[in-house]
Amino acid sequence: MNQPLRLGIAGLGTVGTGVVKIVRQKASLLAARAGRPVEISAVSARSRDKDRGINISNYYWEDDPVALATRDDVDVFVELMGGSDGPAKAATEAAIAAGKDLVTANKALLAHHGHALATAAEDKGAVIRFEAAVAGGIPVIKALTEGLAGNEITRVMGVMNGTCNYILTRMQSAGLPYSEVFEEANKLGYLEADPALDVGGIDAGHKLSLLAAIAFGTQVDFNAVELEGIERITIQDIHHAADMGYRIKLLGVCQMTGRGLEQRMSPCLVPAASPLGQLEGGTNMCVLEGDAVDQIVLRGPGAGEGPTASAVMGDVMDIARGLRIPTFGVPATSLTKARPARAVTPAAYYLRMDLEDKPGALAKITTALGEAGVSINRMRQVSHEDATAPVLIVTHKTTRAALDEALAHMAGLDVMAATPVALRIEMV
Amino acid sequence: MNQPLRLGIAGLGTVGTGVVKIVRQKASLLAARAGRPVEISAVSARSRDKDRGINISNYYWEDDPVALATRDDVDVFVELMGGSDGPAKAATEAAIAAGKDLVTANKALLAHHGHALATAAEDKGAVIRFEAAVAGGIPVIKALTEGLAGNEITRVMGVMNGTCNYILTRMQSAGLPYSEVFEEANKLGYLEADPALDVGGIDAGHKLSLLAAIAFGTQVDFNAVELEGIERITIQDIHHAADMGYRIKLLGVCQMTGRGLEQRMSPCLVPAASPLGQLEGGTNMCVLEGDAVDQIVLRGPGAGEGPTASAVMGDVMDIARGLRIPTFGVPATSLTKARPARAVTPAAYYLRMDLEDKPGALAKITTALGEAGVSINRMRQVSHEDATAPVLIVTHKTTRAALDEALAHMAGLDVMAATPVALRIEMV
Repeated sequence: MNQPLRLGIAGLGTVGTGVVKIVRQKASLLAARAGRPVEISAVSARSRDKDRGINISNYYWEDDPVALATRDDVDVFVELMGGSDGPAKAATEAAIAAGKDLVTANKALLAHHGHALATAAEDKGAVIRFEAAVAGGIPVIKALTEGLAGNEITRVMGVMNGTCNYILTRMQSAGLPYSEVFEEANKLGYLEADPALDVGGIDAGHKLSLLAAIAFGTQVDFNAVELEGIERITIQDIHHAADMGYRIKLLGVCQMTGRGLEQRMSPCLVPAASPLGQLEGGTNMCVLEGDAVDQIVLRGPGAGEGPTASAVMGDVMDIARGLRIPTFGVPATSLTKARPARAVTPAAYYLRMDLEDKPGALAKITTALGEAGVSINRMRQVSHEDATAPVLIVTHKTTRAALDEALAHMAGLDVMAATPVALRIEMV
Repeated sequence: MNQPLRLGIAGLGTVGTGVVKIVRQKASLLAARAGRPVEISAVSARSRDKDRGINISNYYWEDDPVALATRDDVDVFVELMGGSDGPAKAATEAAIAAGKDLVTANKALLAHHGHALATAAEDKGAVIRFEAAVAGGIPVIKALTEGLAGNEITRVMGVMNGTCNYILTRMQSAGLPYSEVFEEANKLGYLEADPALDVGGIDAGHKLSLLAAIAFGTQVDFNAVELEGIERITIQDIHHAADMGYRIKLLGVCQMTGRGLEQRMSPCLVPAASPLGQLEGGTNMCVLEGDAVDQIVLRGPGAGEGPTASAVMGDVMDIARGLRIPTFGVPATSLTKARPARAVTPAAYYLRMDLEDKPGALAKITTALGEAGVSINRMRQVSHEDATAPVLIVTHKTTRAALDEALAHMAGLDVMAATPVALRIEMV
């Protein structure tokens, strides 16, 4: 075990730079912990000459990440390029075909191709690890796959997009509307080039699909994630939720039910006094529930050079120490194909509607709810000067199917000024 | 890798019973995850016939745990008896001498004999794992040793005795004095046979000494842990702390300083709005800080059948999957002997003093502080009807050495009605 572990790193952006720094600056600490040296053989990135504040002159340079991935002097291909297809996919596939182990921070790649990659890796006896792909510096993949390996997992939840949590908590603390805080976040560089990845829930949805595969031994199925972004959350929603003792979070929830696998990434109300409710700013949080352990909560930075590099290095060190477990915790061939289920677990819902201000409008709405079997816990019509009347309703526990029936009925009424906002109240 | 992993379990109390249940009820799940069956060969406990709600008739019974530990059909000795010496130590040593791997929940054993056991295990090529010994169901050993293996650890903190946290938070929520809540906890069966293990901080101190060894690559040194219990915390302390935006927690802190290793287990003030401040009841929390990851917070149940068995099984599954890393993260031979340092990191302190109600008393106290170089941030004399006057002082940041000098000076004055209470304000 005294052979060095040799890395080939593709992608020298923030995370790649952070990884190179750790490997260079902590060589003796890493060697003591791993029982062998951890070294970098070669690197690849878009630009060779960019100043990254690190010296890469001792490493072989490859223009082509595929060439890097298959070098004889590379044991582990560290993929930090990003993107679900293109060079990241090509290089990753090449690495696995060549029998290399893979460490990646690429949630999009795994959300779309995770099952195929895991299957290919197992054919070749290669290992794939991806701690950095989910919740940044939080070792949640490790906790779920290894620490809770004696549990039947019952539910996994997470606030895993720091930008969305920043926007939602900043709206509340500064009393600013969504559009203004969105612009602020944009100026601060918090948003992806395509903001829908953040505020549309796609990025967090990728992460949720990976956690679900591990938790329930199922094939990654990102397309089955119910996605709803935070774009329609208003400052009024946030205030109303706060008045009732809740916070609004872009919350991922996955759980296995008798009717299939629920995977939801959507804005939810959570109790203000819960760890999830108390989570401010860009910090991430994952909640793992198992039949033996009950509930574990993990909190930490969801992004950034140091935290993400920390997660990458955790994986590298596991490989250096000889840990070889299947990508999603069980052999890829035994991962089942889950039937997707739309929120079947009953819950209370928060509804905000804009009604035309005419007689009988409220009666029509409440009738629609009643006919679908949805009963009302509390209701409030907010005083207004516009032609439309904002109405808030919190339902008693109901199924999403019943609520959808009511919402479909309402859509056909002549009193709705806009599509209602319906947010689940998730008991955590 | 299809050979079954065969366990010998010594101790069938709450935790042992929980482990047997998991192994029996989840055989196929465990086998899928481990790539091999996990089986129980033999068990041992004080009474063979006690009704534990589990069927142990299929396992060999050994009256003597040492005999169990060395059986040919045992790969992993699972020690769940407890106690720092006696049968637990004898059986553990015998298991290691026979080359068996060890999984234990025994914090006292490891706090006192961890270095010797780790050294012996490495001689024999055996593995020791002890996730269940620290913070119950929270996979904190795994997160620290493996997840953060790319970090230089800067500080580790923890609330790791659920009974103490129950007492402190119950005092606050019910407004009850320490003695009454202590009795309540006793009746509820929350206290160890020797309550000093809980309220004196010994149990939590054991856990802290194990975390410190991993965090800083040092030999476990429980005797160097500064221990202070919660027995002198009054309901007034809790209210005063709350008024200033703090909570009182029995907090473990370890950090490496230029002057040596600090290991402190003592009641501290922490910000009420921090995750540690918000921790209620018997729940545990660990805060891990590293140079790359910044800060990770882990929260979960610190005791109980399911959570502790979950931690034991996490270790068993790691061994089943082939993970073999040194007990404290680096080879025992390279663990250094740390110089113990008394709190050298400066902090603000909360002081409560009972002064004789006579002229000049306050002047003498403040002079003592001033002469030691301790400056006062705020002070309050509480209105009183007794012969003694309660005085509260919050200092500016100071060293513990300066504070001790002031306290020593005060002890010689004729105005102190009782030994002052001095609590560190730990910034988290």
